[in-house]
Amino acid sequence: MDLNTIGKRAKAAARVAASLTTGDKNELLKALAASLITESKSILAANAVDVDKAVKAGTKASLVDRLSLNKDRIEAMADGLLQISKLPDPIGEVINMKTLPNGLIVGEKRVPMGVVGIIYEARPNVTADAFGLCLKSGNAVILKGGSDAINSNMAIVAAFKKTIEKMGINSDLVQLIEDTSRETATALMRLNEYIDVLIPRGGGGLIRSVVENSTVPVIETGVGNCHIYIDDTADKQMGIDIIINAKTQRPGVCNAAETLLVSEKAAKAFLPDAIKALKAKNVEIRGCEKTVNICPDMGIRPATEEDYYTEFLDYILAVKVVGNVDEAIEHIAKYSTGHSEAIVTESYTNAMKFLNEVDSAAVYVNASTRFTDGNEFGFGAEIGISTQKLHARGPMGLKALTTSKFIIYGNGQIRG
Amino acid sequence: MDLNTIGKRAKAAARVAASLTTGDKNELLKALAASLITESKSILAANAVDVDKAVKAGTKASLVDRLSLNKDRIEAMADGLLQISKLPDPIGEVINMKTLPNGLIVGEKRVPMGVVGIIYEARPNVTADAFGLCLKSGNAVILKGGSDAINSNMAIVAAFKKTIEKMGINSDLVQLIEDTSRETATALMRLNEYIDVLIPRGGGGLIRSVVENSTVPVIETGVGNCHIYIDDTADKQMGIDIIINAKTQRPGVCNAAETLLVSEKAAKAFLPDAIKALKAKNVEIRGCEKTVNICPDMGIRPATEEDYYTEFLDYILAVKVVGNVDEAIEHIAKYSTGHSEAIVTESYTNAMKFLNEVDSAAVYVNASTRFTDGNEFGFGAEIGISTQKLHARGPMGLKALTTSKFIIYGNGQIRG
Repeated sequence: MDLNTIGKRAKAAARVAASLTTGDKNELLKALAASLITESKSILAANAVDVDKAVKAGTKASLVDRLSLNKDRIEAMADGLLQISKLPDPIGEVINMKTLPNGLIVGEKRVPMGVVGIIYEARPNVTADAFGLCLKSGNAVILKGGSDAINSNMAIVAAFKKTIEKMGINSDLVQLIEDTSRETATALMRLNEYIDVLIPRGGGGLIRSVVENSTVPVIETGVGNCHIYIDDTADKQMGIDIIINAKTQRPGVCNAAETLLVSEKAAKAFLPDAIKALKAKNVEIRGCEKTVNICPDMGIRPATEEDYYTEFLDYILAVKVVGNVDEAIEHIAKYSTGHSEAIVTESYTNAMKFLNEVDSAAVYVNASTRFTDGNEFGFGAEIGISTQKLHARGPMGLKALTTSKFIIYGNGQIRG
Repeated sequence: MDLNTIGKRAKAAARVAASLTTGDKNELLKALAASLITESKSILAANAVDVDKAVKAGTKASLVDRLSLNKDRIEAMADGLLQISKLPDPIGEVINMKTLPNGLIVGEKRVPMGVVGIIYEARPNVTADAFGLCLKSGNAVILKGGSDAINSNMAIVAAFKKTIEKMGINSDLVQLIEDTSRETATALMRLNEYIDVLIPRGGGGLIRSVVENSTVPVIETGVGNCHIYIDDTADKQMGIDIIINAKTQRPGVCNAAETLLVSEKAAKAFLPDAIKALKAKNVEIRGCEKTVNICPDMGIRPATEEDYYTEFLDYILAVKVVGNVDEAIEHIAKYSTGHSEAIVTESYTNAMKFLNEVDSAAVYVNASTRFTDGNEFGFGAEIGISTQKLHARGPMGLKALTTSKFIIYGNGQIRG
């Protein structure tokens, strides 16, 4: 099917999605969850084709693992849809309703976006997650997954479409673009007539390509060059616990720490033990000159300017000694991607300064950056973590997939 | 100054803007207002150069009028800044603050966007308005006005910069791009490193060009192909009053009506008198076949498909007879730009249907679309009217120039 037809169908389906009641949507989500289980044989068979192809192409093990489905993972996908069915429906809420001096009654009503486009990479579970969240927020969705997972994605969407049709609903609520070429991806990014918002989910390359090429409004997600700053008065053990957690608890995710900043005053007491603890977790350290001088025999590789800009997503940490909290804030302003940053301090003044002046989606005092997550923040499932400032910033729950419109009740008012 | 330097300076100034207290900002706004009056001689002299050039180039009178300043208009600009100083400051509010099960305290704090770019056309008053709103919301601004008004804009910004410097504040809070070439405009649209949001203010051509070329997030404003639908049970006089107001009270603005839809049942009784009233206001009617048949001798020009897509911004109105409210909603879904639409009806069911199903920024029952305006809605001044769904929709006040960040108070929490 060509992209314009897909767009046109999505726009028509968006009006259906917007008209579904919360009850309708929850029933459908439960049925979709059930269909993943009943159709798991065909989904696993399709996934085996993708996995086999990836293995034969010499894809590295971690990517093959991301791509692979099994009974447990399918159950987790189904469970995700059931969770979404239990979240409160964001649609229909009216805020700030008031009567103007001329008698007009004006309110802002929360409504669906319309058509949401999602461009993502290898993980087939995004197919179910993204559709579930778009459905619950009353949107139609156009999915464009990676070529690696195309058979898995097609099988999942086929199961969904069968279920939707069985319930007598327009199954264009979810459409998967089967042509995984780059040209089609670029054309999708310019489908302004039909798509209201485009959300890329994946690595830095994908996200940059979408930002660069899309004329459809984009929500930029995910790239996280996160910092932990150890202030003069930090509790040493708390600081070590936080950097170990932020770096090593799950290094491949966007809220993991990539750079440790340490105040000059704290450095001598803090760094040797911290680096020892990091080394024990197999973390490679790339340190500034002062760091190397303080810990001369610990195999620290000198950090380059480039290292401070890098989201390693690996057991690698850049370390830099800074003069004070102001220098830490300057460093973050220069190198950060605006995702999550933390200060470890006992100073009230420095804590408040850091919270006020660091311009990132999530700013922490005395906690690990790993908490920047929709589930952790209590939003239920998340569609991604926005690192831009427009529309949504930080973990995005259902509300990020909605917009508002003004509704106005009059009795004949005209403007004088 | 090259664009990168302007961007770098704006980013530095944004941190200054964010740190100003409400008191600082209000003082500065009052001083800026005063400076327009004290510097009015040089501003008027510069404006005379622009006006002279425009007249010699044969620019049409309405555009020359838009460009022209005089004592009253300068006072109105100053007054606008004083009004902004009286608006509540949106910055600093913390919402949804709560304690998570692990003891983390999480809240969403309203913060400035950072650097706002405004691209606009002929009217020099936008220079003062846009800067005032950006300043009050804690942002630095980069202005790119049209070449027609360049001397006026330079004089206004020079007056502002002098005042800001006198108060000991970084005057890069406001920067005007003096090179008005199209290439520079395009380069500005790609300055993602420094600009957080770009807002075009002007005609359809400018807005399309920004949407097409910008990689910086854009808020699309202003194009309004607005509809009035007269339902079966509409009060006839109310319907006539509303369409006369929506079409003729100020035809050149985006919330003016461009198409009148009339239900088949109401058409015979409504159209002859309505069209007579419109004709009396010198409105040219472009009607569908049924309209022409109902009003055969009223000089109605047959409407083309193109007419239904057109924002006339003039004394021209397209008129179409539709079967019922559903057909009216279909027509609006197809042709509207999603700005403002109104139904005139006594039917509760049709009023609710129209409010629910019409997907536009402002949807009215029994009132003129001319009310879609920040001042009318009680937001104070407005930076524009958004016709996109991302971030802001409808009239945008100070809040649309802000974003949020999560602030998290911990006491050593790490993720398990």
